[in-house]
Amino acid sequence: MSTNLETRVKDFRNFVKKIASYNQALAVLHWDMRTQAPRKGMDARSEVIGTLSAEQFKLATSKEMEAFLEELTDSATLDSLDPITRQSVLECKKEYDRNKQIPAETYQEFVVLTSQAETVWEEAREKNDFAMFQPYLEKIVAFQLKFIEYWGTDGKNKYNTLLDLYEPGMTVDQLDSIFATLREKTVELVAAIAQSPNKPDTSFLTKYFPAGEQEAFSRFVLERIGYDFQAGRMDRSVHPFCTSFNPGDVRITTRFDEHDFNNALFSCIHEAGHAMYEQNVDPALLFTPLCDGTSMGIHESQSRYWENMVGRSLPFWKGMYGELQKAFPTQFADVSVESFYRAINQVTPSFIRTESDEVTYNLHVMIRYEIEKGLINGTIQVADLPRIWNERMEEYLGVVPPTDTLGVLQDVHWAGGSFGYFPTYSLGNVYAAQFAHVMQQEINGYEELIEKGDFAPIREWLKVKIHQYGKMKSPRELVEAITGEGTNATYLMDYLVKKYTAIYKL
Amino acid sequence: MSTNLETRVKDFRNFVKKIASYNQALAVLHWDMRTQAPRKGMDARSEVIGTLSAEQFKLATSKEMEAFLEELTDSATLDSLDPITRQSVLECKKEYDRNKQIPAETYQEFVVLTSQAETVWEEAREKNDFAMFQPYLEKIVAFQLKFIEYWGTDGKNKYNTLLDLYEPGMTVDQLDSIFATLREKTVELVAAIAQSPNKPDTSFLTKYFPAGEQEAFSRFVLERIGYDFQAGRMDRSVHPFCTSFNPGDVRITTRFDEHDFNNALFSCIHEAGHAMYEQNVDPALLFTPLCDGTSMGIHESQSRYWENMVGRSLPFWKGMYGELQKAFPTQFADVSVESFYRAINQVTPSFIRTESDEVTYNLHVMIRYEIEKGLINGTIQVADLPRIWNERMEEYLGVVPPTDTLGVLQDVHWAGGSFGYFPTYSLGNVYAAQFAHVMQQEINGYEELIEKGDFAPIREWLKVKIHQYGKMKSPRELVEAITGEGTNATYLMDYLVKKYTAIYKL
Repeated sequence: MSTNLETRVKDFRNFVKKIASYNQALAVLHWDMRTQAPRKGMDARSEVIGTLSAEQFKLATSKEMEAFLEELTDSATLDSLDPITRQSVLECKKEYDRNKQIPAETYQEFVVLTSQAETVWEEAREKNDFAMFQPYLEKIVAFQLKFIEYWGTDGKNKYNTLLDLYEPGMTVDQLDSIFATLREKTVELVAAIAQSPNKPDTSFLTKYFPAGEQEAFSRFVLERIGYDFQAGRMDRSVHPFCTSFNPGDVRITTRFDEHDFNNALFSCIHEAGHAMYEQNVDPALLFTPLCDGTSMGIHESQSRYWENMVGRSLPFWKGMYGELQKAFPTQFADVSVESFYRAINQVTPSFIRTESDEVTYNLHVMIRYEIEKGLINGTIQVADLPRIWNERMEEYLGVVPPTDTLGVLQDVHWAGGSFGYFPTYSLGNVYAAQFAHVMQQEINGYEELIEKGDFAPIREWLKVKIHQYGKMKSPRELVEAITGEGTNATYLMDYLVKKYTAIYKL
Repeated sequence: MSTNLETRVKDFRNFVKKIASYNQALAVLHWDMRTQAPRKGMDARSEVIGTLSAEQFKLATSKEMEAFLEELTDSATLDSLDPITRQSVLECKKEYDRNKQIPAETYQEFVVLTSQAETVWEEAREKNDFAMFQPYLEKIVAFQLKFIEYWGTDGKNKYNTLLDLYEPGMTVDQLDSIFATLREKTVELVAAIAQSPNKPDTSFLTKYFPAGEQEAFSRFVLERIGYDFQAGRMDRSVHPFCTSFNPGDVRITTRFDEHDFNNALFSCIHEAGHAMYEQNVDPALLFTPLCDGTSMGIHESQSRYWENMVGRSLPFWKGMYGELQKAFPTQFADVSVESFYRAINQVTPSFIRTESDEVTYNLHVMIRYEIEKGLINGTIQVADLPRIWNERMEEYLGVVPPTDTLGVLQDVHWAGGSFGYFPTYSLGNVYAAQFAHVMQQEINGYEELIEKGDFAPIREWLKVKIHQYGKMKSPRELVEAITGEGTNATYLMDYLVKKYTAIYKL
């Protein structure tokens, strides 16, 4: 490498470090806003966030960045770079192109539109008035089509361009095949469960569970599974979330329902699954654009793995149940671990995705996927959404929401302009089952370890195979390297059928 | 005003708004670091703070700022500006000149030196080894002299240049006269108290007070005096502090000693005194350099007023004592309000400034003032500090610290390079007594209001006379407008003599 190139690389690394610093600061400002920051300071805070975001955007789309990219993406130069710099260049290039291809005014209009749409959506949901929201959604879909035009397509399906925003490399072809597997086998499983006479008793889950005691027990469980509280903290917020400032500071939040035990603890484990991913990213990636999960789907695989495949498993509770009974003696004194296990895994077709169980969850996601694909390819019109939504709910889940509030209006994603995001929720489940399948083969005494509460080998496996890479490997590269095959929904269905056949004695 | 000037003013206001936004973001990052942020994320956080601070500094000292100041400080132009813009220009000019007059490398060296010195000081204090710290302190004093050369003096006393950093307009002449009054009368009062046979019983203050209950009671008291929790929040930190992001978000922190009641509550009231000042700054000053207390001394007058003149007064506890007994029934059941009042106002000459009582406090400050003045004017050498410190402690307080750890090494200020700061602690007490004296004349039924717990008229008075102005008025302007005279320590001494004559039955 020439001295001149060396200098330019150093400058580039400093430049992306500056951008990353803005992002870290912004993440702190957002975290703070959502964890009990005082109401009266919010307007000023929003302006501060606006100012710093604009500075960050200016840097990412600056002439300086353009010059770096021009110089460093020349293929001979690119090949001569160290791997982290090379991948950083490619990541910056991707973001730079995406930002530059859309005219600034168009993007500005879109930001204003979605900000209005979120407010209108909130009211529409409250009033069960889809017609009110419809014109906004129509405009948002039109913007998506415009963006696809600016960004270009792979010539196969326009929706692929949007999928790539959240799950790089994912396509409609792959998703159609994944959801075909999920649909067929899940609908069958749900029907069998519905007919089973062996329903779990869940009454003890809705006794009184004081928030303070739930919090203490959640902290105990998170420490046990290995969320590092010296590299994170847990606070309360209206909606639970995980946010990473750097691998040494990855925070989660939660909320407590004192009359529903089947909520906060599993949400905490879910967020901790996200957080442990970020805590284990290679510190060498700090202050690069690669210091993050590689995709929404892989991220969700980590949260769903810990939440469902560990946290709602029988071995986990066999090992942990004594502690639970100690923490909540009156609530669980006369409940066996098997009854508890069956209760926390109850399957009931319901209206709301975020409250749905592990089995029906993917059907909720699939409806959204099919609708998005149809909207982007012109086979579905916004005006028909309430009807289509309810038809599919009936077809897949056997229930019809009595209102649009409990139906098509339930999620904020579309109002916020996120199209292509929903499928990553199911991809998370699919990946998680694939990874768990390999872990069972590669980690000695996998189930016994979970029962003993010794999660170190599992954490180490996840760190070595997935976490450490951050964005250095694409989702496809990770999946293929770990499993020796592509994305495959069979493992998820095998896992679900086996687990729920036992629970419901099918 | 010409259209051109109008545009420039708008641009200037936007420019200072951007600088203020960086400052707000930095304040949030600092607050977060000091309120239980995870240890492992601290290094990366420090780098983020470094990057954003550098950006802020670049803006404040930029060519753009230079151009604004050149244009807007022309005296005809300045006169034509609206008051807030005019004062903002003057404030920016002051900061710009201060920053520009010191060569960047010199300042950089100083930053490195003080950062090392703080670490060395910590070790020196731990090991009771002044010699270890001495060479650093000598260099820091040399830097102060260099800074004074760059900044220039008023031709009267070099130390005035440093005083101006913290208390604009304050001079050695004024301080000498203030401390002469304080010294004479306080030494006399302390001696009389020492000889009084009527010492308060304080044994009940060191019973067991659970942190959670102390926190609940502190929150109750802060709400009662009028700290607005919708424009602030209270967290825990190692050292209590107050930080303002904007008038709608002014936060305080505290810590609890479970075996000393005479600590957290009064510290909370102290920080809330600072906070209410910031909460009441005119919102029109938001995003200008004026949205802050006008000086350290005036700021301290607000915290000390609420802590001592309200929070440690008899009427306050006459009104509040029932609530205290309800909160801590076993601890205070057989303690009368008078006994409690006398206990929380115990006077004992002691070694540590931050733990000292209201009477002896100013003597601690005076020793530091005399030493700083001597160091800057060359009449005292760093090597002699331990001896001089102990001599003055003996002279003023009648006690000699057995170690330098309990003496000259106790405060971090000098290691951090802050010279001229200490006197503002006593100025706070002096101002507070002057303001309280006027309040007693201007607010109907002043003492009855405190006893009733109706603090609204006092808050309103402070807001109208002091808080709202932020940095729009200098400390001298405020004091003169409110009291009709200059800074005058007689009121503080009258207050102290009267209060403690009663408590100790002198």
